[in-house]
Amino acid sequence: MADKSLFERQLNHVTIREFTDEPVDPALVEALKDVANRTATSTGMQSYSIIRIVDEKKKKALADIGGQDYIARAPELWVFVADVYRNSRIAREQGVELEAEADSDRFFQGFTDAVLAAQNVTNAVEAAGLGAVYLGSLLNDARAVIELLNLPKLTFPVFGLGFGHPNQSPQLKPRMPMDLKCFTDSYVVLDNYLEAIKDYDEEMQTYYDLRDANRRVDSFSNQVVTRLKGATKNRAALAQIAEEQGFRLSKEK
Amino acid sequence: MADKSLFERQLNHVTIREFTDEPVDPALVEALKDVANRTATSTGMQSYSIIRIVDEKKKKALADIGGQDYIARAPELWVFVADVYRNSRIAREQGVELEAEADSDRFFQGFTDAVLAAQNVTNAVEAAGLGAVYLGSLLNDARAVIELLNLPKLTFPVFGLGFGHPNQSPQLKPRMPMDLKCFTDSYVVLDNYLEAIKDYDEEMQTYYDLRDANRRVDSFSNQVVTRLKGATKNRAALAQIAEEQGFRLSKEK
Repeated sequence: MADKSLFERQLNHVTIREFTDEPVDPALVEALKDVANRTATSTGMQSYSIIRIVDEKKKKALADIGGQDYIARAPELWVFVADVYRNSRIAREQGVELEAEADSDRFFQGFTDAVLAAQNVTNAVEAAGLGAVYLGSLLNDARAVIELLNLPKLTFPVFGLGFGHPNQSPQLKPRMPMDLKCFTDSYVVLDNYLEAIKDYDEEMQTYYDLRDANRRVDSFSNQVVTRLKGATKNRAALAQIAEEQGFRLSKEK
Repeated sequence: MADKSLFERQLNHVTIREFTDEPVDPALVEALKDVANRTATSTGMQSYSIIRIVDEKKKKALADIGGQDYIARAPELWVFVADVYRNSRIAREQGVELEAEADSDRFFQGFTDAVLAAQNVTNAVEAAGLGAVYLGSLLNDARAVIELLNLPKLTFPVFGLGFGHPNQSPQLKPRMPMDLKCFTDSYVVLDNYLEAIKDYDEEMQTYYDLRDANRRVDSFSNQVVTRLKGATKNRAALAQIAEEQGFRLSKEK
């Protein structure tokens, strides 16, 4: 392999939530924008945007939305947005206004483009010796994010990404064995999942999450239930909020 | 920067659609699975699966669905799947059956996890000196993919990824300037997008796409219109197909 160091970093990937005060080198910020820009994109349409948050008040507002103080402390805070608005305008300025601009294909492509760019940026962030945290918690109130960042119709916030110089070194988090997630030629449905993840469940209970270092985390099977029980109306309404943003996710006529 | 080589590769990323006959080293395939497994995942839920296609007949079937012959020729062909089924089973085996398991939050998390893992794998593929192609074209008939790969309820195909040893070296594809896609603190709506992308439009017309090397490609603004006009009923119905798979994307009660 030409570059073993990327593999080593990838196999040791951990989420970094706390950073030193050292700002991210502006030259690196520009390089990371270029990395985002060169990422693969669905049918070449580049249907995503990035909002880089530097206003401390907006950082605080996003931290409140996410319910996580550390969001406000991230030296760099980027919000990735599925963006079909720009291309809709490019079509309309040519006199073309088609229903297809708001269909679910366009929405999924924009969503995909945003996530691809984010992971490409994350790999570059880690290659530069920095650390990063994905902030899905911004979707706790997607409407508030849309208002705060003035996101126009046909855009939708996907998640935030905080990054900077790490000020913690978390333990590697255990993962479910890949043979439960990777199949050959056909999806394999198991008879008994609890049995299949028994060892993994035990392994998880030996892992300490830095967010609450005083107690061990739950087994994975317990976490699945906790997450389901913790479902909120706001987050369940994400597709509805996408509809409010002009996307057509309901049944096509 | 600790690792400049990743940046260099990222800034020179091109899609590779044609590969040599050399198979991908099985050790590398296993390493790539590990890379997928270590990728960041929404709330730790690992809501994605990968179907690795080795059956030549299935490869051919996927190539027919995508309408692209080269899909069948990809030495490695992986289909990334948003997968909420596994965790639903883990909850149900504990006697917990909640409506939340099918909400749009769960769907978006699964979709996100699948895309994050795919881009992480792509970075690793390119680090190993190989090339890759994303295959969104599989969604031309998502129902057929679901049937072919026996995807259960609460799963949804996101895209395919073909990779192997490159047998072509395409020209770098021009991208819209990043200042049209990256904003500070607030989304910026322009008065005139056609004017803003004028240079980019011209740049695109000097780019030759290897898929049709005999003619120059359209300007970006023309491509946007062509894509909208080419919208198909099957692809517009993607959200509906997700509903058929058991996800609840319509208005929450």
